Amino acid sequence: MSNMTRFIPFTQVRIDDPFWNERLRINREVAIPTQYVQNKKRGLVDAFSLTWKPGQPGHPKFGYDSDVYKWIEAASYSHATHPTAEGEKLMEEVAHLIASAQDADGYVNPHFQVLERDKRWTNLRHKHELYCAGHLMEAAVAHHAATGSRTLLDVACRYADYIDTVFGTKPGQKRGYDGHEEIELALVRLYHATGQRRYLELSRYFVDERGRKPLYFEIEARALGEPFPYEDHGDPPGTYWQCHLPVREQTKIVGHAVRAVYLYSAMADLAGELNDPTLLEACRTLWENTTLCRMYLTGGIGSARRKEGFTRDYDLPNETAYCETCASVGLIFWGQRMLKHDRDRRYADILERALYNGVLSGVSLDGEKYFYENPLSSEGNHHRKEWYKCACCPSNLSRLFATLGGYIYSETDDGLAVHLYIGSEAEWTLAGGGKGRVSLTTRYPWEGKIVLRLDVATAAEWTLRLRIPEWGSSFRLTLNGGEIEPRLEKGYAALRRVWRAGDEVGLELPLIAKRVYAHPRVVADVGRVALQRGPLVYCVEDADLDVCALEIALSPTSKLTEKWEAGLLGGVVTLEAEGRAPATEPSDHPLYSDTNSGSAWSKPYPRPVRLKAIPYCTWDNRAPGAMAVWLPEVDL
Amino acid sequence: MSNMTRFIPFTQVRIDDPFWNERLRINREVAIPTQYVQNKKRGLVDAFSLTWKPGQPGHPKFGYDSDVYKWIEAASYSHATHPTAEGEKLMEEVAHLIASAQDADGYVNPHFQVLERDKRWTNLRHKHELYCAGHLMEAAVAHHAATGSRTLLDVACRYADYIDTVFGTKPGQKRGYDGHEEIELALVRLYHATGQRRYLELSRYFVDERGRKPLYFEIEARALGEPFPYEDHGDPPGTYWQCHLPVREQTKIVGHAVRAVYLYSAMADLAGELNDPTLLEACRTLWENTTLCRMYLTGGIGSARRKEGFTRDYDLPNETAYCETCASVGLIFWGQRMLKHDRDRRYADILERALYNGVLSGVSLDGEKYFYENPLSSEGNHHRKEWYKCACCPSNLSRLFATLGGYIYSETDDGLAVHLYIGSEAEWTLAGGGKGRVSLTTRYPWEGKIVLRLDVATAAEWTLRLRIPEWGSSFRLTLNGGEIEPRLEKGYAALRRVWRAGDEVGLELPLIAKRVYAHPRVVADVGRVALQRGPLVYCVEDADLDVCALEIALSPTSKLTEKWEAGLLGGVVTLEAEGRAPATEPSDHPLYSDTNSGSAWSKPYPRPVRLKAIPYCTWDNRAPGAMAVWLPEVDL
Repeated sequence: MSNMTRFIPFTQVRIDDPFWNERLRINREVAIPTQYVQNKKRGLVDAFSLTWKPGQPGHPKFGYDSDVYKWIEAASYSHATHPTAEGEKLMEEVAHLIASAQDADGYVNPHFQVLERDKRWTNLRHKHELYCAGHLMEAAVAHHAATGSRTLLDVACRYADYIDTVFGTKPGQKRGYDGHEEIELALVRLYHATGQRRYLELSRYFVDERGRKPLYFEIEARALGEPFPYEDHGDPPGTYWQCHLPVREQTKIVGHAVRAVYLYSAMADLAGELNDPTLLEACRTLWENTTLCRMYLTGGIGSARRKEGFTRDYDLPNETAYCETCASVGLIFWGQRMLKHDRDRRYADILERALYNGVLSGVSLDGEKYFYENPLSSEGNHHRKEWYKCACCPSNLSRLFATLGGYIYSETDDGLAVHLYIGSEAEWTLAGGGKGRVSLTTRYPWEGKIVLRLDVATAAEWTLRLRIPEWGSSFRLTLNGGEIEPRLEKGYAALRRVWRAGDEVGLELPLIAKRVYAHPRVVADVGRVALQRGPLVYCVEDADLDVCALEIALSPTSKLTEKWEAGLLGGVVTLEAEGRAPATEPSDHPLYSDTNSGSAWSKPYPRPVRLKAIPYCTWDNRAPGAMAVWLPEVDL
Repeated sequence: MSNMTRFIPFTQVRIDDPFWNERLRINREVAIPTQYVQNKKRGLVDAFSLTWKPGQPGHPKFGYDSDVYKWIEAASYSHATHPTAEGEKLMEEVAHLIASAQDADGYVNPHFQVLERDKRWTNLRHKHELYCAGHLMEAAVAHHAATGSRTLLDVACRYADYIDTVFGTKPGQKRGYDGHEEIELALVRLYHATGQRRYLELSRYFVDERGRKPLYFEIEARALGEPFPYEDHGDPPGTYWQCHLPVREQTKIVGHAVRAVYLYSAMADLAGELNDPTLLEACRTLWENTTLCRMYLTGGIGSARRKEGFTRDYDLPNETAYCETCASVGLIFWGQRMLKHDRDRRYADILERALYNGVLSGVSLDGEKYFYENPLSSEGNHHRKEWYKCACCPSNLSRLFATLGGYIYSETDDGLAVHLYIGSEAEWTLAGGGKGRVSLTTRYPWEGKIVLRLDVATAAEWTLRLRIPEWGSSFRLTLNGGEIEPRLEKGYAALRRVWRAGDEVGLELPLIAKRVYAHPRVVADVGRVALQRGPLVYCVEDADLDVCALEIALSPTSKLTEKWEAGLLGGVVTLEAEGRAPATEPSDHPLYSDTNSGSAWSKPYPRPVRLKAIPYCTWDNRAPGAMAVWLPEVDL
């Protein structure tokens, strides 16, 4: 652990940023309260009263308790930075209700407690018991840290203690593990909050047990008379749950996307906690496969609606892209953990890509509607909804946004690193002791200028590291007004010197609209071009066009014009260019023909049209219409 | 009616054809009997006993009675050409069961009779009462014609008489029409079978009433407190059901695809029966829109899974193509009716395209599994299933196949026309009186040689017309061995002469593999090429390839080699060529890059690979795998 980067906790970071302020306010004031209201309205909160009786409507569904836990977790983070008395009271009430539901042995899961009392732990593959337990633990740790209340933490510890007796390699214990990974990373957090090493060991057990043959899930399925494998489609048995192989032998990200990145996050945690290079190596291999072969330009992952997961390398269809919001959130969780091990911009770049695109697109600008799926192209039928029956994504977004400050800065033995350019102030402890303060001012990602002011109590020599995104190689750096040429360490500009109070560093990143192309094996994008400016991926949407967004093309040479539009979509930089549209042929032109040589046929986009692109994360906030990220690239 | 082409009924045509024999045998011996077994097993037959009581499982579902009717219809056709005593007995039993269910007033619909007794005709939009009545009529007409039994015909007439009292423009009558068109064309058939003109008038009422404002369906929805319009997605209200406008004002095929083509079939019928050129003109306009702007290369129609229908001109995505089997069957129904009005190959070509591609693909080679949706590209997850909850497609295929002989020949006032090249013998009555016999021998669509032998009792002058498909302009025609140059009439080679017994006409169609391109506005196919040979559209499928079918490209110049493979897929002509595959880049190649200039990037398909294509209608009959019709076309 000692040589790992320590991120400055979000509680020590105050965000004040033109891009994020309103989004974070909405998260606190609209999204998180709405999540409680929805959970309450749908009976998810009251399920913990365990009063449901057979014959009554609305029995507690398995897995739904996790939504209540995730609301508490997000609300706790929000409370930590923006406390309110009524918020604290409500959380404590719900915590007490949960505590009241706990069985004497520590078990708590409303569905099983009232509906399948005798079926505890019999269907780990599908019924989310350990997944919910994990979310309870994360919520408990957050709630305790934010409020000091031990109500939920005690519930979580009792539950974890009980689970520790049920699962393991000792005689009489079940050799099972969870069907939806989550408890592994949660147990590491519980270990950190309590210092109880047995939680870490239990996490290690769950991770190490995965993939042992014969597969526990096969045994379990046979015992229930259920088919196994589940939706395998030719994959090795267990692929859906990442238990087809022991985790250290896995080289490709497979199966259900959210499950996968939650597991890898825990593996990255354990690699550090247990000083286990074999786990870290597996994580690195899986990260490479993910980001070099199986990730969308938006940082979305999981290309197939079937299984909500992965298919094969370079299979990245646009309209049918699944790209669950939760999966991009999980990619960020995983990326930050990789960055702790290795301060390499390859991790931070992906984290930022997912954050500003595949994650941010998950919520409407007014904070009232959510995407579950984030495709890169749409006929115009795909819209955010107020809520989902399986509402995992809203609270996942909220807990990420409420802790966003925790992704910006990290302290290392020799100084401070800045990973994301979000306007903020933070406090940290200098390596040699003594407090430091840093403030970051910027209009990023709209403008490339970033100013850092350092306020250190005592002058000392240490290294300030600033991430230079891969697209930003022509950056400019100034120190107290004078230009400097820094050394680059894995994509971070490293400035080692004696820092004094009032020092000011200016970074100018080249926020220039550019064309992006996909690897030629991504057949969905062959002959297509995307637009990106800084971390933002752009798209075209019907609302801005005179033709259908799915029918507009771009030449490789037409000039891209950037324009700040304060009144559009809450204020965005748009990109404009001369686009090309298909001919408006008379309808007696044949639909299919054996020649491809007429003028309209060899030049399918003859008409110049205005092309305007907006940031992908802001699409579907106006009139419903088609959208496309990848545009045909055609010569004039 | 008098100047309309009269198709020689399937009962006067005996098919003996290498391509179709086995398919038709399977239809008779496997598919139709299986449909009864499935309907029986699922309680659809016994629903007519009306013994279901509240609280019991398996209540009669609305609409499902149509599957029983469609089985009787298909089985009757089969019986007409291949009678069996037990088949006749079973049909009569079921007919009696249906008769026993009929209410005194003529109403029969198990769902409403046992579940919604007081809701008759209150939800025409969704609950398929008139649709089922229509299928009852078609079944009754077929059953009576095949067996002489009036059991079902009497039920149908009583029901039609009752419906005639309920719906219409007289005081006290409902001004409604069906939510799923079908009864309109069925009433025309009932009129033909009975000579009762009121059935024709009722059909006319249903067709003419559609689109009158205020919309009946809006009134109905408001009365039920249900939202209106239904899934409109910005379309004019009623679009889904083709009642957004009076039928004569409709110019684009819209809404649910099967509904649309059933309606247009009825309109084409009525245009003839009522000698109404305005209806025919509307049909022509709609046919043009369908076949010039909204039809897949396979003759599949309905591009959107949502609504199972249409979106906009040229919107023909491949992987998400819906192309319900029933919709292509309905396109054939409609096409034949258009052909009756106007012997123009434009109708017959489309009929043949749908038959050999989008329809034939609907059933597996062994006759045991069915596609509901027929996409033009697949990741490998789309497979035929044994049965569907909503099992409309299997019996639709069966009734079409069982009457296939009725699509081959038509008699006109001045002779005989041949529309499809299916080996067969037929009898017809010469215009001047006297019987004629024609026999057609061919190995079409594998080989282009077609031999017609005429056996006419008395020498007489009349015109023999042979369809020359659009792709077959370089045909050769011989008469008794000598080459002749016929006149072409709307794509039909017309041979007027005094025909004598033993005359032999030889037609050689150029069955040559060729490349096909889509209209440039079909953005899904821009830069792509398809392969076709005669009427057969080809596809590539993983089972034949060393790379994924979605990753194989074709150059515009590589030679296409045809090969008869007797052992493959029941015997098919395959096409082979040198294809191109993506590079096998090392995985550290970036997934996204701002340059498009490296060799692999500018030439995304550098590797030569073997490409083998099979007829689209035979895909998914081997190991599951990806499939594509439209291949990227790339220069070497």
